[in-house]
Amino acid sequence: MSELDWIAVDWGTSSLRAWGLDASGTVLWEEKSDRGMGGLAPSEFEPNFLDLVGAHIDGADRVEVIACGMVGARQGWVEASYRAVPCHPLDSQMTEAPVSDPRLRFRIIGGLSQAAPADVMRGEETQIAGFQALNPKFDGVICLPGTHTKWVHVSAGEVVSFQTCMTGDLFAAISGHTVLRHSVQTDDWDDAAFAEAVDDAVSRPEKLAARLFSLRAEGLLSEQPAGRAKARLSGLLIGAELAATRPYWLGQAVAIVGAGGVSRLYASALDSLGATPTLAAGEAMVLKGLAAARALDTKDKK
Amino acid sequence: MSELDWIAVDWGTSSLRAWGLDASGTVLWEEKSDRGMGGLAPSEFEPNFLDLVGAHIDGADRVEVIACGMVGARQGWVEASYRAVPCHPLDSQMTEAPVSDPRLRFRIIGGLSQAAPADVMRGEETQIAGFQALNPKFDGVICLPGTHTKWVHVSAGEVVSFQTCMTGDLFAAISGHTVLRHSVQTDDWDDAAFAEAVDDAVSRPEKLAARLFSLRAEGLLSEQPAGRAKARLSGLLIGAELAATRPYWLGQAVAIVGAGGVSRLYASALDSLGATPTLAAGEAMVLKGLAAARALDTKDKK
Repeated sequence: MSELDWIAVDWGTSSLRAWGLDASGTVLWEEKSDRGMGGLAPSEFEPNFLDLVGAHIDGADRVEVIACGMVGARQGWVEASYRAVPCHPLDSQMTEAPVSDPRLRFRIIGGLSQAAPADVMRGEETQIAGFQALNPKFDGVICLPGTHTKWVHVSAGEVVSFQTCMTGDLFAAISGHTVLRHSVQTDDWDDAAFAEAVDDAVSRPEKLAARLFSLRAEGLLSEQPAGRAKARLSGLLIGAELAATRPYWLGQAVAIVGAGGVSRLYASALDSLGATPTLAAGEAMVLKGLAAARALDTKDKK
Repeated sequence: MSELDWIAVDWGTSSLRAWGLDASGTVLWEEKSDRGMGGLAPSEFEPNFLDLVGAHIDGADRVEVIACGMVGARQGWVEASYRAVPCHPLDSQMTEAPVSDPRLRFRIIGGLSQAAPADVMRGEETQIAGFQALNPKFDGVICLPGTHTKWVHVSAGEVVSFQTCMTGDLFAAISGHTVLRHSVQTDDWDDAAFAEAVDDAVSRPEKLAARLFSLRAEGLLSEQPAGRAKARLSGLLIGAELAATRPYWLGQAVAIVGAGGVSRLYASALDSLGATPTLAAGEAMVLKGLAAARALDTKDKK
C-alpha cells in the first residue's frame, strides 16, 4: 500500500471532509464529519480534526494538511487573509494554523475579496482552481450555486470579478421563518411552476415583493399544493438572482460548479433564458483545487 | 359610574387587547395580554379571554363582544369567513365563537379576500373602517405597515383592491436567520443609509438580489457599522415593496395607518418619491372600527 503524502481538507460552515493522498495524487482514504466551522470555537478545531483523521496518521512525522473553506474565516480556526481580485484563484501563500500535535502541519488557503461592489468568497476559490485545472482554457463565468451562490468572471486564468447572491440562505429563512412556512413544507416539486416563477421574476423584477405573500394567499383561497408554492418560491428567488446577475451570464460561456439538485435548477433557469451552461460536480472540483494548491506549494519550494 | 355595554377586542397573532365600553361609546377600562392567537389551541381562547376580562363581567348577563384579527383565522378560535372585494370593509354578518360561559356572546368580524391577485387580510378591514369613520370622504390608498403590510385602494366607501407585501416578516427572517444576522444586530440606525437604499431599490429593483450579501461583505472588509447595515437592509426591503406597489401610491392620496416607528419609515420613503402621505395611529383606528361594527350591528337589529 502506498504511503500517505498529504491530507486535503474542505472545512465549511456545516461540514468537514478530509482525503488522504499519496505522492501520485491517488486518494488513499476519505473521512467526513458534521463538525463544521459554524459550531466550533478556535480551540476545538485541532481535537475535532484529530478525531476524524487521527487513526490515519499514527506514527507519522508532520503530515502536510492543506485546507480550504470557512475554517479560515475570522470566526474559524485562524483567519487566512483575503487576496483582492483580479488575481489567480490560488497562490502559494497559505496561513498556518496553530497546532500542538507534532504529527501535523495545517495550512489554510485564503479567500478572495473585491473592493467594489464589496464581496468575499472563501472555499469557492479552490473549486474555481479545480475547474481551471481541468479546463485550462476556460474564459467566461463560473456559477457556484449554494447557500451563497457565487458568479465569477474568469479570464486568462484570473478571477476578474465576482458577485454573491444569498439565494439559498434567503430560501431557507423564508421557508422556515416567515408565514410561508405554512405553505411550502413538502418534498413535492412542480417544474412548471418553477419555470413560470423564474420567467416572472426575470421579466418583472420590480414585482418580487408583491409575489411572495400570494404564495400564502393562494394556499388559503384555492388550496394551492405545497409543492407548487415551494417551486414558485424557489423560482422567484432564483429569478431575482438571474435578474441581478444578468451581466454575468448574458452572452457568456457559463459553467455551473456545484451539487446535483441545485445545479440542475440553475441550469434549467439559465436554459430558459437562452444561456447554455455546462455542469461540473462541486465536490470533485474541491479536491482538484486542493491538489492544485499542493502542486503550487511543492513547486514553490523547489 | 356608567354601565358596561359591550367589549371591543383586537386579537392578533401575538397579542390580545380588550376595551370595555358603555352605551355612549366611552372606554370604561382597557386590558392587554400577550396571549396572541399564534400560541393558542381553539379550546384555549375562552379561558384566556376570561382571565383577561373576567373581573369586569362579574354578574353580567350576556355581554356582547365584538372581535377582529387572527382570532378568526382557520387556526384561530373559529373561522370567520372572508368576504370578497370590492365590498365595504365591514358588514353586519359576524361569526359567533362557541362559548360555555353564559355571561358572554363572542362574535368575530370576517376578513377580506381578493381572487386575483390572490390576497387576504384579517384585522386590517376593521382599521380601514375606523379610518373611514373619521374620514368619510377619503378616496385613495390606505397603507397599513406591519409584519404583512397592506396597500388598500378605497373608493366610495368600498375596498376596491389590495396588495400585501410581507416586508416586516422578511426583515425579521433575514436579520435573524441568515448570514446577515452577524451584521445588523443593533439598536442603532442611519437615516441617510436608509434613504439611499430606498432610492437604490426603487430605481434598480432588478439589482436587489445582488445588494443583500454586500451588507455582510462590507462589514467584513470595511467594518461598516451595524446601524448602517440594518438601515440599508430595511431600506432595500421597503424600497422593493414600493417598487412593487407603485400603482398604489403613484399620484394617489395616501394615508398610512399604523404604529409610530414603522409608519414614519414608510412616510419618509414615500416622501422621497414625491408622495405626501398623511398618518393615523393604527391602535385608535382599530377601536373606531370595532365601534363601527357595533353600530352596524345595533342598527341592523332595529
